[in-house]
Amino acid sequence: MNRHKLQDFQAFLYANIPLVGHMQLELKAMQHDLLTASAPLLPNINDKSTVFGGSSATLMTICGWSLIKYHLEDLKIHHDVVIHKSQLNWIKAQKDDLIIHSMPCHEVNWQQLSQELKTNNKSIKLLLSSQVLNQANEICSTMDATYVILKK
Amino acid sequence: MNRHKLQDFQAFLYANIPLVGHMQLELKAMQHDLLTASAPLLPNINDKSTVFGGSSATLMTICGWSLIKYHLEDLKIHHDVVIHKSQLNWIKAQKDDLIIHSMPCHEVNWQQLSQELKTNNKSIKLLLSSQVLNQANEICSTMDATYVILKK
Repeated sequence: MNRHKLQDFQAFLYANIPLVGHMQLELKAMQHDLLTASAPLLPNINDKSTVFGGSSATLMTICGWSLIKYHLEDLKIHHDVVIHKSQLNWIKAQKDDLIIHSMPCHEVNWQQLSQELKTNNKSIKLLLSSQVLNQANEICSTMDATYVILKK
Repeated sequence: MNRHKLQDFQAFLYANIPLVGHMQLELKAMQHDLLTASAPLLPNINDKSTVFGGSSATLMTICGWSLIKYHLEDLKIHHDVVIHKSQLNWIKAQKDDLIIHSMPCHEVNWQQLSQELKTNNKSIKLLLSSQVLNQANEICSTMDATYVILKK
């Protein structure tokens, strides 16, 4: 996946989900099915000068969603994607800029999935795992979430 | 709890957690242990013109936290409060302004809890339940979360 397309996708996020702009989320790389993103501490800070738990929750939520939506759009599939449920853990207080990783919990064949969406009018669920890391690459929070690609 | 004190607490949130200001969270009432808050759709909208899942996650996260922190500050207890884990469900797409409710899952005796914090140097966990409702009072998303009042 090339850098230019990821920047276009980020522009789509900023244009449509104002909170993402306020958090200054930056999509850095899509390597196979690993999405890497970043966000600065300052717009995501709390009263203890650490990362606000709501920010880490939101950043993981949008990165998981972006991973799915980006792959679908790449295959010209414009189905809506929504989050269905999630489980989060905050492991470590964080005082620096955030790195966010999202990936599917099981290997996804996107070509096959797009065929299924085209031929069967059924919603499809995907389970994704996301993490927020600090600049020392230590895991500070985690999220497992189920997203649904809605039938048309 | 009087309205004036709740407004002061909201000012504290806006001053210390910039994301809360961007979401335009408004603390409306603390009736016994039920915190009611609101937020407009527009700063919390997504690409489908419905409530962004990250916004509902963040609003429930901060409302649960605020309920605990507000009661502690009211008793002159200045311990830090952090979120530890949460489970969220998105039930219904929402196209209007948000109402947020937070309450403890079990009755809390705040006076007794403040005594425990003063006498034992131990962290205390509290389980809270939060909901986002639409203007027809239908539940659109829910969160059960464990917060920790950290020892000094």
